[in-house]
Amino acid sequence: VLDQHPLAGWITLVRASRVPLAEQIYRQIRDGARSGRIPTPGPLPSSRALAGALGVSRNTVTAAYELLRGEAIIDVGAGAVPMLRAQALALRTEPMSQSTEISLSARGTALAADRHALAYAGSGGAMRPGQPDVALFPRDLWARALRRATRLLDGKAMLYDHGDGLPVLRGALARYLAEARGVVVKPDQLLVVPTVQSALAMLGQALADPGETVWIEDPGYLGARAAFPGMTLDPMPVDADGADIAAMTSVPRLIYTTPSHQYPTGVRMSLARRTALLAAARRHGAIVIEDDYDSEFLWSGRPIPALHALGEAGEVVYIGTVAKSLLPGLRMAWLAVPPALAARLVEVQRNLGLLVNVHAQAAFADFIDGGQYRAHLNRISGVYQARADALAAAIIAHCGGAVTIAPPLGGLQLPIRFDPAIDDAAVAARLAVAGYSVPFLSGMSLGPPLSGLLVGFASADAAAVDRFALALAAALGLR
Amino acid sequence: VLDQHPLAGWITLVRASRVPLAEQIYRQIRDGARSGRIPTPGPLPSSRALAGALGVSRNTVTAAYELLRGEAIIDVGAGAVPMLRAQALALRTEPMSQSTEISLSARGTALAADRHALAYAGSGGAMRPGQPDVALFPRDLWARALRRATRLLDGKAMLYDHGDGLPVLRGALARYLAEARGVVVKPDQLLVVPTVQSALAMLGQALADPGETVWIEDPGYLGARAAFPGMTLDPMPVDADGADIAAMTSVPRLIYTTPSHQYPTGVRMSLARRTALLAAARRHGAIVIEDDYDSEFLWSGRPIPALHALGEAGEVVYIGTVAKSLLPGLRMAWLAVPPALAARLVEVQRNLGLLVNVHAQAAFADFIDGGQYRAHLNRISGVYQARADALAAAIIAHCGGAVTIAPPLGGLQLPIRFDPAIDDAAVAARLAVAGYSVPFLSGMSLGPPLSGLLVGFASADAAAVDRFALALAAALGLR
Repeated sequence: VLDQHPLAGWITLVRASRVPLAEQIYRQIRDGARSGRIPTPGPLPSSRALAGALGVSRNTVTAAYELLRGEAIIDVGAGAVPMLRAQALALRTEPMSQSTEISLSARGTALAADRHALAYAGSGGAMRPGQPDVALFPRDLWARALRRATRLLDGKAMLYDHGDGLPVLRGALARYLAEARGVVVKPDQLLVVPTVQSALAMLGQALADPGETVWIEDPGYLGARAAFPGMTLDPMPVDADGADIAAMTSVPRLIYTTPSHQYPTGVRMSLARRTALLAAARRHGAIVIEDDYDSEFLWSGRPIPALHALGEAGEVVYIGTVAKSLLPGLRMAWLAVPPALAARLVEVQRNLGLLVNVHAQAAFADFIDGGQYRAHLNRISGVYQARADALAAAIIAHCGGAVTIAPPLGGLQLPIRFDPAIDDAAVAARLAVAGYSVPFLSGMSLGPPLSGLLVGFASADAAAVDRFALALAAALGLR
Repeated sequence: VLDQHPLAGWITLVRASRVPLAEQIYRQIRDGARSGRIPTPGPLPSSRALAGALGVSRNTVTAAYELLRGEAIIDVGAGAVPMLRAQALALRTEPMSQSTEISLSARGTALAADRHALAYAGSGGAMRPGQPDVALFPRDLWARALRRATRLLDGKAMLYDHGDGLPVLRGALARYLAEARGVVVKPDQLLVVPTVQSALAMLGQALADPGETVWIEDPGYLGARAAFPGMTLDPMPVDADGADIAAMTSVPRLIYTTPSHQYPTGVRMSLARRTALLAAARRHGAIVIEDDYDSEFLWSGRPIPALHALGEAGEVVYIGTVAKSLLPGLRMAWLAVPPALAARLVEVQRNLGLLVNVHAQAAFADFIDGGQYRAHLNRISGVYQARADALAAAIIAHCGGAVTIAPPLGGLQLPIRFDPAIDDAAVAARLAVAGYSVPFLSGMSLGPPLSGLLVGFASADAAAVDRFALALAAALGLR
């Protein structure tokens, strides 16, 4: 039978493959029928005959035929010859290949923008802002906490029941935020999400309709701009006291701010400005989104309480993260939301699928409750302060009066201001050639641009800092 | 000095508190100024005097004053008396409390719907579908893989550079998907995201504009309905051959389908239907979203290749997950996207912040490459098959002709069909009282409803299965 059948010629089995033999036979018959190399409708060899010809067990061929039957490619009656069905040919009625033009939606097009392109002259280089020193991550302690979590976590915590965050973490976070940041909320007001960015995008979707206005700091965080596609961004100018709403005339639905450590200028918002901002939010019925990304290890004085602590009427949604304090790769952030919003935002979070690995959540709860998190924050605060001071000193030594540096408050990066006449994008481009990914401040501005750079120091030792300061001097034409 | 100052009366320090004493002092002065209990502008006691009165070190008071100065609440000159500034009063110009009405956006309102309310009579009960047996999770092996990942992962993998997925995981997944599912893609076509739900919501936003049409299986997965707010859902009727597009007249932008194991009916889509569906997608320029949530451990025959394997022109986006095969709590899923879309969807993913814990990613790559994943799939397939068979047998024994059960193909749940005259919601409600969370099929229908239940068996032993079958018979009025 087999010799008269087209199958004889071209089934090739690769015995070393990890693809099971039955699967290989199945695929080749299917594709043969599809391409027209095997006529349909028409008979196939019996499983015994094909097994003999291919040198495999009959069970293997039977399994292949079962797969074909499961897809209605063949009919197999008891004792009858397996028959390829005519429908197997249906695949040939359409062109075999076709280059589809795939367009994104309007929202998708906006979301597909490379936000870093606005302010970065190159990627993958050194001294990039916003990135903690990986070497400071307490990996042994974390590995131990993860192991404990994996061994101990059980039941519904491992399924879908706590998509908004493990109860043990929400409890620990509630205690921690009250003590460290003055953010006093109940655990069920806390939502654990993968990233600050996911929190911003979720709030943008949930709270504002397309065309509504978002007040946004200027210069400001590019991620926030990218998180609100379809909305009107109205810039709040930032000066030495933080974002200033005095001249704002639009009606905001959302107000995005980084009051404890403004990104990128590093400024701390004054109490007067905080008060004015909250009053404006209440007046307009707007929600303030407080992005508190790195204020847990500011070293100038103690960290000041979050803006949330001044909120009176649930007008502030607070966002925190481990991305700066521990590691971006943990992919863990949190929102503290007003009681009136909590239940609805939990459903929004679920329907957007913004869930976080449970073992990492339990490990972080351990870190908070066991004191390792506090100890880690104390440690990195000292290290980063020394590195920031070294960077500032080196730049002043090599670039002198050509730059302005405010005493750094903390964080992972230092803003360096130039004379407004200097083309900061050109300076950044020269530094990119030298191997540095330092964004230029004018690229983070919507209104009148600042000129300057934002330089990460978190991983830079004394030699690296000195090399960078020399490269900067060269890029500025000072040497 | 202190006795003449209002501070004397009401600063109360709690020494047992984890809130540092300086912070306690700072907060109470700030709130006193804010509430008008301390007159502003006006002097504060010297740090020495206040320290003496409160019985704390002078450093503590200095630190509190530093916090107040940092927020511009007080001025402290060298040697001068600390002065509360007038602006501290600004907080009183707004009402102290106000109940803000917070409304969601149109999209937010849709996203805030509790999707389970459509088909579940109660939550938190037993026999719920879609949930793997937590006891089968190989926690010791996973703990070891996590530990290795935590110790070995380094550099940019721990920061932001691989937000779309660790290279080691994308490579392992590409090999695995080609072998196991016939999904042949390059690693850079794979995006690792937290959940299937996040993948659906991302694709909905990125690929379809509001008002465009999504073809969706009927009955179908409620999560998919919830992921496409603002779009028109057009139901594709599902019969024994899977979703049928023969009668569809609308022009779809997206087509959502679960061809390998239709949710909730458990049907496998025939080749003819697959072919027709892909042809329609090409004709309309639509993208097919193939949700392959649990087909890696179907046990009826071997798993059949994904619909993606038949795609000719990049018309299929494939989605897989570990939520059913390993554990929902890992929060890890993936998309295989057409080459023409990959780069843009990576940016969309970044701007939506859909990132996954790197240690879990590396551990899963280990599991795939080391063979533990295959071994685990083989193991659970056998266990789940036995449990499904036991459930089917028990229900037939206790409910006989009142129900129809198709031989289960695999997965974690079994659909049970009733006579159309039976009110399945009422049956589910009676079972909810008895402690079961089994959704009713009519709640998952947009068109003519099926009557029946979807019963999870993954964690059910023989006794549990028997108890459920008896409860079902009672809920159906059979005993």
